[in-house]
Amino acid sequence: MTDRLEIIKSTKRKAKPDAGNLVFGKQFSDHMLMMDYLEGEGWINPRIVPYEPISLDPAAMVFHYGQSVFEGLKAYRTEDERILLFRPEKNLQRLNRSSDRLSIPAIDEEKVLGYLKEFLKLEKDWIPTAEGTSLYIRPFIFATEPNLSVAPSKAYTFMVILSPVGSYYAEGIHPVGIYVENSYTRAVRGGTGTAKTAGNYSAAYKAQERATEMGQSQVLWLDGVEKKYIEEVGSMNVFFKINGEVVTPALNGSILEGITRMSILELLKSWGMNVSERRISMEEIYQAYEAGQLEEAFGTGTAAVISPVGELNWDGRKMVINDRQTGPLSKKLYDTLTGIQTGRLDDPFNWTTEIK
Amino acid sequence: MTDRLEIIKSTKRKAKPDAGNLVFGKQFSDHMLMMDYLEGEGWINPRIVPYEPISLDPAAMVFHYGQSVFEGLKAYRTEDERILLFRPEKNLQRLNRSSDRLSIPAIDEEKVLGYLKEFLKLEKDWIPTAEGTSLYIRPFIFATEPNLSVAPSKAYTFMVILSPVGSYYAEGIHPVGIYVENSYTRAVRGGTGTAKTAGNYSAAYKAQERATEMGQSQVLWLDGVEKKYIEEVGSMNVFFKINGEVVTPALNGSILEGITRMSILELLKSWGMNVSERRISMEEIYQAYEAGQLEEAFGTGTAAVISPVGELNWDGRKMVINDRQTGPLSKKLYDTLTGIQTGRLDDPFNWTTEIK
Ligand SMILES: Cc1ncc(COP(=O)(O)O)c(C=O)c1O
Ligand SMILES: Cc1ncc(COP(=O)(O)O)c(C=O)c1O
Repeated sequence: MTDRLEIIKSTKRKAKPDAGNLVFGKQFSDHMLMMDYLEGEGWINPRIVPYEPISLDPAAMVFHYGQSVFEGLKAYRTEDERILLFRPEKNLQRLNRSSDRLSIPAIDEEKVLGYLKEFLKLEKDWIPTAEGTSLYIRPFIFATEPNLSVAPSKAYTFMVILSPVGSYYAEGIHPVGIYVENSYTRAVRGGTGTAKTAGNYSAAYKAQERATEMGQSQVLWLDGVEKKYIEEVGSMNVFFKINGEVVTPALNGSILEGITRMSILELLKSWGMNVSERRISMEEIYQAYEAGQLEEAFGTGTAAVISPVGELNWDGRKMVINDRQTGPLSKKLYDTLTGIQTGRLDDPFNWTTEIK
Repeated sequence: MTDRLEIIKSTKRKAKPDAGNLVFGKQFSDHMLMMDYLEGEGWINPRIVPYEPISLDPAAMVFHYGQSVFEGLKAYRTEDERILLFRPEKNLQRLNRSSDRLSIPAIDEEKVLGYLKEFLKLEKDWIPTAEGTSLYIRPFIFATEPNLSVAPSKAYTFMVILSPVGSYYAEGIHPVGIYVENSYTRAVRGGTGTAKTAGNYSAAYKAQERATEMGQSQVLWLDGVEKKYIEEVGSMNVFFKINGEVVTPALNGSILEGITRMSILELLKSWGMNVSERRISMEEIYQAYEAGQLEEAFGTGTAAVISPVGELNWDGRKMVINDRQTGPLSKKLYDTLTGIQTGRLDDPFNWTTEIK
């Protein structure tokens, strides 16, 4: 039986960071979950082992040809000390879709969700308790075969590491400034934009540097073909409220399908709101702005849940949205989603999975 | 002095593969060249150490966000036992251009060329002697900081590994079949196509799988915007001879600038041929084919030097070029370039660097 989860406990325990001192993605729990893929054998040897460096041949294909995908989700502690995951099956489905695009073999989603639950049970003391905090879960897969041929690897490693994270909005939810990028491209149809693959992220650093130079905190990406249509914001999907209607770019083959995005669409529909997924040009946004109809704009993603946009800068034109204040819809969505995620609110959609 | 090259020799020596048994990219020499980058200190600790696995934190940024660039060049042994490199300074310049696109700090090209020469002197017995063989040199850089923030790493490793390679054309130079890819995209303007970054290569596997299914050996990539204009072939640049004129796609912001391409352009001009770098549509190629004016087509790159195209398959239309035979220009370019690379011919352009 190669798919029985083996657990090797660490003999040392790290000191846990205090609630006020949680730095995203720099502190990790005591263990890591791993699994190997070998051609002809499939995914084997699922195991939880002490968190420690991994050893790779310098010719391991991940270094050379970037066959690597990842996910990001969170475990939340409720007020009554239950542990909740938010739609984890969606993350594992997306991981497999990403893998397919990168010619990486699929994992068994159900088995892996089982291993993940075991892992979180073992590491439950790493889930911080303070308001707004959570445990960030990072599953990832990379190619390990030592071979410089440009072809899919015959060996992979699947891993999950855990990092406690502080409240994204320690000083309260606040709108950010956005720079609309006109020359760098994140993704194009036929490319890898729909996959959560490593290379997409470093490809965006140059544009992020420019946004920072312009005094803005994030990049808004336009389509790679015409540089007219809105795709996403940084590592978030994006929504606009225009004259009462809520719109978000349709999944066109270059946008990442966010799980927060998907949940917001379901929520808005359940509230009877007028929502649509469609192509949205920057010109349309600008016209709505000029006409006084651009009511709200916000990014959506696992990290911030909702990130209101206070200012959009496009080709020298500045649009200040809702007086740089968090709009009522943004606030309501934030409160509802975080309420469901942390068990403060009912979960009518059955989105959460409790770890017992 | 942190930039003095330290050498720690391996106490064991691996058996060298025999000339008939050289498999590209699977066998490596006894040592590896390494160097570290730390923020505030720059590139430090250049060293040659025994070839062995490297140890990385599971949160090392290369696994998650793909900040990783590489190069590929060859060392050739001449008949009179000299060792030649072909335009290595161009590879190091391109490495720095790739790094710039990925927000990786530049290396000192001159110092690194010096280290590389020392390294090759130490490993010179790994350069195979048989006709057509060489030692493949793979420099690469990857992000090592353990941090899940989506931002440039503060630490990197530079490495060079060496792999003896057999003759690309053990059975003589032969034309290949090419599948013109209409939906997957390699790169688009504003993206990372001009950089030799890891993510570009695994992004191409799906299209290569399709080419293989179609019984073709390589993919011809079209532009990501209109899917009309020719970009490159697999991991090679591409040239066409049409009615006496030699054309290759211009460097438009999404094509990799090949060093073989650059050298061929210089050679052709020195021969007084009619050459141009410009936009070339598939429609133009098809029309030239129909008019009987498509005389030759070939890919160019370090691996094969010249790879004649015998057949092009575009949207159900098949074009057989020069009766699937290697054309006279392809042959002359191959003989001239490999002649210069291996010291059989004079080197009027001063392209080679001897390692003494
Ligand atoms: C490029 C990109 N877009 C959007 C998102 C938002 O997705 P999710 O809501 O699943 O976190 C993410 C983050 O995962 C992302 O990396
Ligand atoms: C995408 C791509 N195009 C073209 C080339 C050809 O470049 P060069 O002639 O420098 O080997 C390569 C190989 O390096 C490549 O990876």
